Formats: sequence, structure tokens, C-alpha cells
Amino acid sequence: MAVPTTEIVGKTTEIPGLLVFDITSVGDERGWFQEKFHQAKLLAAGLPVEFKVIQNSLVYNKERGAARGFHAEPWDKYTSIVTGQIFAAYVDLRAGKNFGKVVTQEVDKNKAVFVPRGVGNSYQCLTNDVYYLYSVNRHWSEDAYKISTFVNLADPDLAVNWPVPLDKATLSERDRNHPMLKDTKPIVVSNG
Amino acid sequence: MAVPTTEIVGKTTEIPGLLVFDITSVGDERGWFQEKFHQAKLLAAGLPVEFKVIQNSLVYNKERGAARGFHAEPWDKYTSIVTGQIFAAYVDLRAGKNFGKVVTQEVDKNKAVFVPRGVGNSYQCLTNDVYYLYSVNRHWSEDAYKISTFVNLADPDLAVNWPVPLDKATLSERDRNHPMLKDTKPIVVSNG
Repeated sequence: MAVPTTEIVGKTTEIPGLLVFDITSVGDERGWFQEKFHQAKLLAAGLPVEFKVIQNSLVYNKERGAARGFHAEPWDKYTSIVTGQIFAAYVDLRAGKNFGKVVTQEVDKNKAVFVPRGVGNSYQCLTNDVYYLYSVNRHWSEDAYKISTFVNLADPDLAVNWPVPLDKATLSERDRNHPMLKDTKPIVVSNG
Repeated sequence: MAVPTTEIVGKTTEIPGLLVFDITSVGDERGWFQEKFHQAKLLAAGLPVEFKVIQNSLVYNKERGAARGFHAEPWDKYTSIVTGQIFAAYVDLRAGKNFGKVVTQEVDKNKAVFVPRGVGNSYQCLTNDVYYLYSVNRHWSEDAYKISTFVNLADPDLAVNWPVPLDKATLSERDRNHPMLKDTKPIVVSNG
């Protein structure tokens, strides 16, 4: 029997290693089904073979405007949306000619974004009730956290055109106080 | 810095290998955060060390009453809920003294259930808009599908007390036509 299944197509972006995937879903009388993360299909679509999921985390955002970031932890992230829509922004924080390069992308349930370590990740909710799901290949730890890098969403040098002005957006106190890019050291990315 | 994180506690059930986990979440002004699947914490809470996630699938169910099952594919499943609430039922289909044993469990976002291969999995939605998320350690394939086993939700020998009577519930035609347990052969479970 042929069962209709999810199709996954990947594309590269202006930040090396940052990948955007289109993911279809299959509907029936009860609702729909979607392979959010399918290792074999994602590898065929460009996902690095080293990326092995050991954690799935879920973030619930109540209100349009809620924003988080930029966060660059020493692990890779595969990010997706369960419900709602976000405006995501990424900044390359790795040493080299792309340091400070920004890519933005609207993401809903039919997209996923792979964010390699060394690239700062952020997003703002375009709708209420956003459920944001992401997979990582390393667990949080205090030691890992110490070598994480954070950059301010409001940095005028990055000039991200946030759909909801940040003075009207809900941010954590911690995210509001991150340094600007010019005060941030490039990240030395390690493997493993 | 101490970051408050998810706590995971596991418990066994009357079906050997079927495990129920309690999972906390952490709230703030923007919403909440939850580690849906955290390999290290789950291993400490009883998850078999062999279970490696290679796929995350999402099922959206529009309406209360929608039901799916029983399905026993040749892979293990770690099942959870993003939004809404379900009534889940499991039946042991492995050869032996537990063949036909049923366990039921209500599941919302603060629970997850590990369903080992050889145990049939099913659920009925107790709310509208249920997003059901599950992880597996093997991809779907026609060959694997051929050795899957399916049992009828309405089997009087299993006597599952479905909260919404099945004649008023939305089921796929395929699920409505599965055989009864007495016409089902026990599954020979293989490793790997």
C-alpha cells in the first residue's frame, strides 16, 4: 500500500550552513499528519549527517510580538513551528567574512530551519499562541552555557526590521540587556 | 547561573516496557518552556538506552472524538501532546502471558508515554485541536509496514471504555476495519 507522506525540500541561505526546509503535510477527515523531522529525508535535503537529535524542546508564546534572542549556544538547532507564525532572524557570529551577516525568514508549520552552532537564533511571534518546537544535538549544561553568545535584538548595526517594534514587544529582561554586535567576540566553533 | 529546567519522572505500567512520564514546564512572562524529550533525563527515568530518535511526527486532530489505532509497527514510539488532551489505550500484542492486556491513560502536555514495539497504540481526543507529537527510532517503509499489526478499537474482548462512543467518533475507514484481537497473531518482537 502506498501511504502519502511528507515531502521535504531544502535550500541554502546567505549564511553558510543555515538551511531552510519546506515540509508538506497530508490531510484527511480527522486532521493532518506531518513528519516534522525525518532524518533520512533531511539528510537527502542537505542536513549535516552529524546532526543527531537527543532533545526536543517546546516553547509556548502567548502573544503576538513576544520575541527571543539572539542566542548562539554550542550546539546545532533544528527549529520548527507547530501552530502560529514567526518572523525569525539569524546572525552569523563565527569568525570570518560573514561575521554580522543577517538572514531573516518567516516560518510557519510548513517550514523548518537548521541553525548551525555559531549562528545566533532569534524570533518574534507574528500571531498569538505560537508553539515553537526545536531539536538539538547537545543538552544544556552550565559549562556549555558559559560559552554561549548573546546579541541584542535591537542592535542598530544589525538593523533587523522587526514586525512588532521592540518597545511594544514582550522580551525577557535578559534578552533586553544583551550586548551589541560590536561588543561581541566572534565564536570559535568546535566540532563534537 | 541556575536556569530552571524541566523535570522528568517515569513510572512503569501493567504492560512490561510501557512507561508513563510526568514532565514539568517552566513559565515566564512570554509563555512557557518544556523539554518534551530529553535523552539524558529520560534514560535516568527509565527510557531504554537503545531508543534513538530519528523522526519526529506531528498529528493534528480537529475534533473531540477523533480516534486512531490500534497500531503496532516494528519500531518504538515516544508519544506526547502539544495542545489538548487525549484518552490513550494500549494493548500488548507480544506473544506470552500479557497478550491482550490493556492499559489506558489520559495524556496532556505534562505527560509522555513510551510505547515499545509489539504494543498496540491508540488514542481518542478529549478536546478539539489536539496536536499529538511522537518520536520513533525507525522510519516508515513498505517492508516495515507489512509486518505491522492492527487491532480493532471496538473489540468487545478488549472492552476499552472510550469516552466518546465509537459510533459517534471520527475514525479512518482503515481503522474501522481492523481485525479483532482473537483474529490477530501475537507479534514476534525483534531487536534493532
